[in-house]
Formats: sequence, C-alpha cells, structure tokens
Amino acid sequence: MPNIKLTIEYDGTDFAGWQRQKNGRSVQEEIERALAQITQKSVTLVGAGRTDAGVHARGQTANFKTDSQLSPLDYFRALNGLLPDDIAVTEAVEVGDDFSARYSAVSRAYKYTILRRPSALMRRYSWQLSYDFNINLMREAASVIRSTSDFQAFCKVEAEVDHYRCRIDEAEWHEEEDGTLILSIRANRFLHGMVRALVGTMVDVGRGYTTIGDFCWIIESKDRRHAGQAAPPQGLCLISVHY
Amino acid sequence: MPNIKLTIEYDGTDFAGWQRQKNGRSVQEEIERALAQITQKSVTLVGAGRTDAGVHARGQTANFKTDSQLSPLDYFRALNGLLPDDIAVTEAVEVGDDFSARYSAVSRAYKYTILRRPSALMRRYSWQLSYDFNINLMREAASVIRSTSDFQAFCKVEAEVDHYRCRIDEAEWHEEEDGTLILSIRANRFLHGMVRALVGTMVDVGRGYTTIGDFCWIIESKDRRHAGQAAPPQGLCLISVHY
Repeated sequence: MPNIKLTIEYDGTDFAGWQRQKNGRSVQEEIERALAQITQKSVTLVGAGRTDAGVHARGQTANFKTDSQLSPLDYFRALNGLLPDDIAVTEAVEVGDDFSARYSAVSRAYKYTILRRPSALMRRYSWQLSYDFNINLMREAASVIRSTSDFQAFCKVEAEVDHYRCRIDEAEWHEEEDGTLILSIRANRFLHGMVRALVGTMVDVGRGYTTIGDFCWIIESKDRRHAGQAAPPQGLCLISVHY
Repeated sequence: MPNIKLTIEYDGTDFAGWQRQKNGRSVQEEIERALAQITQKSVTLVGAGRTDAGVHARGQTANFKTDSQLSPLDYFRALNGLLPDDIAVTEAVEVGDDFSARYSAVSRAYKYTILRRPSALMRRYSWQLSYDFNINLMREAASVIRSTSDFQAFCKVEAEVDHYRCRIDEAEWHEEEDGTLILSIRANRFLHGMVRALVGTMVDVGRGYTTIGDFCWIIESKDRRHAGQAAPPQGLCLISVHY
C-alpha cells in the first residue's frame, strides 16, 4: 500500500491546532477531509508535531497510507486545489512502507519571532514587545538550554509523557537589523508548551527579572510553576522536521 | 502650528484603500479618527500615496497640522494604542511648516511579490502563480520601463491627471532562492493602477504571450486596453517615500 509523505505549510491563526479535536477547526481534519474527497476513502494522517492553537508551520510533515493509485504529484495538485487557503502542501513524495512522519523523525526545528517595533504586517506572525532586553543575557540562557536535558519545568502539567528528556541540537538567538529577535531551536522532541515556556522565561531573563542563576534553578526545580509565562502562539513556527 | 509627519505600516487586506471614502473602511479615516480622539479636534491627514483596496504599505507617509501641544513621541504612543492592529505608526517626527507628505515627496518606492509555490503564510502578501516564466524577458521589459517616460498605457482611464509622464528611478526584477520574483520600482510619481498594470503586462512577457516588441508597441499606443490585466492588489506594497 503506497505510503505518501506531505510537507505542509499553514497559517495557524484560525486553527485550534494541528490535531483533530471535537471542538474547533484543525489542520489534520481539513487535510483528512480533502484526502477522503480525493481517494473516496477514509484516510488517517500521521503528523510529525502537534502544534497548538495559533502556532504556524512552514514545514510540518505528515504521512498516510492508501490503496488509491494516484501519484504524489496528483495528491500535490488535488490537495492544493481543495484545501482552504490557510493550508498549502509544498511537497508530496512516496516513501517506504515503514516510514512514519512522527516516529521516524530525528529532530524538529522551530523559530520564535519577537518584534521590537509596532508592525501591522508582522502582527500575525510575531510577539510584539516594545520594552528593552539584554540580548546577551538571553544568549546566555540559550547556552544553558543547550546543555540541559530535562525540561519538565517547561512542560504543561497535564501532558502524558514517560519522561521529560530532550536532546537539544540548536538553541540560538539572532538579532536582525531592525532589532527583531529570532530564537532558532532544534531538538529530537519537544514537550507540550515547551518552546513557548522557554521563550517566556528567557524574555524574563532579558528584562532582568530572572537572573541566569534563577534560570538554572528553575530548570532544576522541574516545576512548571517556577518558569515564566508562556509566550503567545503567533510568534511560533514549526520550520522543518528532519529524518 | 506644529506639523507632524507620520510613517505608517498597514495590512491592506481589510481596507478599501488609503483614501477616505463614503463606502468602505480606509486607512486615512482610521488615523484621522484616532487623531481627533487624541487632540479633541478634527484633523486632516495628507498622505503621500493613495494606495488601492488590498494594497499594503510598509512605509506610507502622511502629515497633519495641529495646535495641540503634544510631542511626536506622544502621538506615536497614543496612535499605536488607539489604532486597530492592521495599522501601525512606525515613526512620528515634527517637520517644517511647508512640508507636505504629498507635494514634498521626491520619489515613491513599491515592491511587487510573485510567489511561484503554494504558500499559506505568504498568501495575503503575494500573487501566487505556478506556471513558468522567462525571468530574462521580464528583466528586458523592466529595462524598457526604465527608459520610458509616458505611462498612459498603464493608467486607469478614469484618472484625472494633466499628463502621464513619470521619471523611473528604479525598475528591477530580483529572483530569490525559492523562485520568488520581486519587482522593485521607484519613480517620482505613479499613475492610478500603474504598477499593477505594468506587472500584469510583464508577466505576459515572461510567459511568452507578449514579445518585447509588443511591449514597446503597447507603451507607444498610450492605450490602457492594449496592456495586460492588472496584477492583484495583495502582491503590492508601498515600501517608502523619499523627500
């Protein structure tokens, strides 16, 4: 049975998240509905990462198995014709039978964008903060994250997981010419709410509300209540998934 | 009486254009209403360029005179606090009494973005075209534009103007890594609908529907009916106004 891998871009603004759910519009459901229309059969889509409500994706990946004999290019064209315009399929390829977008993934990369000036064009895709930061302190916090392995302090409490260990491959703040700050973070896995909790806490460090010592203590406490407020979803984007 | 110059960014998606009008929401009206609230007086805003419905701006400029004694920083803060989030004031400065955002402007710069892949995140800010172009032909058309001075063939017929002469300072297509095409065009003035008519006609050249010879003939005909269809507004952005 052919196994098709999709790369998907979406504007998370009007979605309740990636995952199918009882109340609210989800990306998974929209694509599954379009696939059912194309194949005339019920299709289950396995996504690499469950992005939250309001979070965007430039390179989400997902796969589905089907006995329909359409080519990847057929799926690419038919999906882009049928999907609402806040979802786009940027690639469709056939993959091996044992490929799973979720379990075969080696790492996921996210970006978080903080804008430091008023903007009408970036408001849907950034967190706009006008106060001053010490970017060097935020970079120090990022270097602490790079040598951290247990992220329980940055995980939503209701999350059902076996353990809280993540291998961080990249965690770096870049500052653009106009002062925009972008966190690039890549890891083998991310816990629920982890990037937004990390960004909120690093912003507290940049503002001087939390010292680097406190930041290390928060990590060691393994208690979500000690970390900062979650940064808002619209600044977050799933950039790519690596296999 | 202090004369205040504003630099303004807006997302044109939900506007009927810059200019105040009877039916439809305009950027000018929203800002004038906010200024009236701040100064408790009626304020008239003079804009540098009248962008059409759906066209965006990163650096529109406008000025107003007022006997209110607020500082430019006060206006900056109060406007960004009061304005809807699809308008942002990015700068407010006091200028000389004879400054007019419209009549003092030396040139205006626009960008037009053509995306050649499906995208959910750029759909509000680009024209998405999946067919093939010859970018070299489009560059040739741009070089013809650089040595053209009469643009009547690219002007909406109802426009009330004395003459159709424009001095083109820049007209250049850039191709980005992912195939995105961006026209950067700067001129002392633009006629109504001019950039979108030029882009539509240059796309016809890139697709091979219109030869460079035909393109020159269209210009010489001075007849809007000979030029191509107007490119859609969402790909167009007023980048800056120079004084």
